[in-house]
Amino acid sequence: MTPALYPVLGVRLGTAAAGIRYADRQDMLLMELPAGATCAAVFTRNAFCAAPVVVARRHIAQAAPRYLLVNSGNANAGTGPRGLADAIDSCEALARLTGCTREEVLPFSTGVIGEHLPVGRLAAALPAALAALRDDGWADAARAIMTTDRVPKLASRRFHVAGRTASLTGICKGAGMIRPDMATMLAYLATDAAVARDALHGCLQEAVDLSFNAITVDGDTSTNDACVLAAAGTLGNAPIGDRASDDYQALRGAVTAVCQELATAIIRDGEGATKLVTILVEEALDPTEARRVADAVAQSPLVKTALFASDPNWGRILAAVGRAGVADLDIDRVRLWLGDTLIVSDGGRAADYTEAAGRAVMAQPDILIRLALGRGEAEVRVLTCDLSYDYVRINAEYRS
Amino acid sequence: MTPALYPVLGVRLGTAAAGIRYADRQDMLLMELPAGATCAAVFTRNAFCAAPVVVARRHIAQAAPRYLLVNSGNANAGTGPRGLADAIDSCEALARLTGCTREEVLPFSTGVIGEHLPVGRLAAALPAALAALRDDGWADAARAIMTTDRVPKLASRRFHVAGRTASLTGICKGAGMIRPDMATMLAYLATDAAVARDALHGCLQEAVDLSFNAITVDGDTSTNDACVLAAAGTLGNAPIGDRASDDYQALRGAVTAVCQELATAIIRDGEGATKLVTILVEEALDPTEARRVADAVAQSPLVKTALFASDPNWGRILAAVGRAGVADLDIDRVRLWLGDTLIVSDGGRAADYTEAAGRAVMAQPDILIRLALGRGEAEVRVLTCDLSYDYVRINAEYRS
Repeated sequence: MTPALYPVLGVRLGTAAAGIRYADRQDMLLMELPAGATCAAVFTRNAFCAAPVVVARRHIAQAAPRYLLVNSGNANAGTGPRGLADAIDSCEALARLTGCTREEVLPFSTGVIGEHLPVGRLAAALPAALAALRDDGWADAARAIMTTDRVPKLASRRFHVAGRTASLTGICKGAGMIRPDMATMLAYLATDAAVARDALHGCLQEAVDLSFNAITVDGDTSTNDACVLAAAGTLGNAPIGDRASDDYQALRGAVTAVCQELATAIIRDGEGATKLVTILVEEALDPTEARRVADAVAQSPLVKTALFASDPNWGRILAAVGRAGVADLDIDRVRLWLGDTLIVSDGGRAADYTEAAGRAVMAQPDILIRLALGRGEAEVRVLTCDLSYDYVRINAEYRS
Repeated sequence: MTPALYPVLGVRLGTAAAGIRYADRQDMLLMELPAGATCAAVFTRNAFCAAPVVVARRHIAQAAPRYLLVNSGNANAGTGPRGLADAIDSCEALARLTGCTREEVLPFSTGVIGEHLPVGRLAAALPAALAALRDDGWADAARAIMTTDRVPKLASRRFHVAGRTASLTGICKGAGMIRPDMATMLAYLATDAAVARDALHGCLQEAVDLSFNAITVDGDTSTNDACVLAAAGTLGNAPIGDRASDDYQALRGAVTAVCQELATAIIRDGEGATKLVTILVEEALDPTEARRVADAVAQSPLVKTALFASDPNWGRILAAVGRAGVADLDIDRVRLWLGDTLIVSDGGRAADYTEAAGRAVMAQPDILIRLALGRGEAEVRVLTCDLSYDYVRINAEYRS
């Protein structure tokens, strides 16, 4: 079940039970990076962002991180000035124990919104997490950051850098763009390769746009989203910096693959999800309108309930395309396939389409909705899931 | 139960059972306007619009309508060139029976998408509908245009024009911005007052923006939406034309009130709805950003499931505000009230807010979510409903 996980030399992970929300569960993760590691991070674009996001953004601009400190069970979001102080205090506590500066610690939180972080309990568990640090701690780490995720999410790849074999391993958590009270999506990746900071950031941004930024469960962007990529530099290669180099391309390929595998795992674990749905929009004028159409389809409650019912309801898909706000869209040029089956052309049902063929595709657990707009050459791919009773149950009953 | 309905002199309505989708139900409505009546209409902005919308738009530009011909059970949408021919043929059939031109007939359809309209059955039922025409036919008319609506929707007002008492009566159907297979929202209003065409159109557009365009069940704009306002001119007044006049203001007030009453009835009858929710956004820089915030909250599945659960989950509301795409939004200036209870200020829970106070508001069937952005003076109001198990059931099981 658990995929092959390659340790990343110099990167150690430790977990502990801090009792943040529940007793007797590992709810704290410490990730240690070696001196000289470079680090890139992207954060939520939600204007309502959590205190740890504010502090992590500030710290990574000031120093090269030595520790990532993550807790589940409490998002430290909507907590005002005290929330900021709590996030900083957590970093301070770890700095005192390890001798690093507090700016060398990046804090991350995920869990319930609007409650204050129990900093005392968190600090008290730090020595146990430090004692637990080891380089094969990835699987335990993936479990420690889960909130209502049903499965831990891990991915790992090897790639070649200047004749050496580099490793890249990553973990993430998330089952919706926002977990209701239990916010959100976090991802941590590390490689042993040495990478210059600008190149690392470019590589991460590109991979995130093709993975975590191209998935949606419910369209609700979280307050705590963060993704970090660390380059430990323990492989011994000259730092990768030139984006035209083979080394950079190999790194980029591995990072994108790991991010996409983790992003797909989030959708498979989406709240109430019973289907993994790929929306592929082709022949758009530009990527922006392609994305707009893909998002309209991926976020349509009517399309998502039809997917849950395995109903090849092309009228709902076309109606979502029609309201996506594409200027001068000629709906008669739009073609729609479910899997390989052409369903719509010339403004209506395709001549040789049969309901039975559509139903056969929709009965699969993995479904491709392919739309050609007939306007240009841009394309985009977005992953989503269906909307089921369980989505409503999970989100309605959570605090009941 | 049924509100007072004022007949509109010169406007007659008749229904018939054409057997379009179901036997033995009144599924056709004919609305007759007197010679000299003026007429204004607004239609769906969905690029994927139904054949009758294309034809009605064309006809109203060419002639003053004498008949509105409406069928339920079949939307005549996604039906390509044959769908257009079918819509035109329906008008032609009525024109032959009545002696008017086919351009004087506006066709409207609502129901299943992607199936061809049974024009023969529709034409065969026209004589019965003509024979049934009467000026107190509004209540039967409201029932004939229902698809999966649970209740007929009617509203009526009187207003004063040049010392005379004018009547305005309207009906509509709809329980979602789109009814899954059963598309859509239709509304028909008529007054006996004489109104110049430009003034009538301006009045309708303004009323629709404040009513039908300010509601959402699921964010899915339909392929068949239409709203028509007819001014029969039988009251004997000089046509209302000057938008600064008292008469115009009285007309505008009545049209807006009737549209808002009908729009509210749609949300109360929303698919699976258990709550009527008003989102009021204040202190925005301009109406566009106010609307963007209101829509983000109104369409958030997480907010809507919390409403279903009567859960005062302010974190979800604030997260929706934060992702609404308002430039430079300072979330610390945002205040949030549920009803009269201040819940959020200074970026977190308000100091004297108690969960019990929030729960008391959320337990009501009608809920006000009030947001002040602290940026300017624009405000907007949007109506929505919650997201329940029944929404998923209705939309997932419809074709099963």
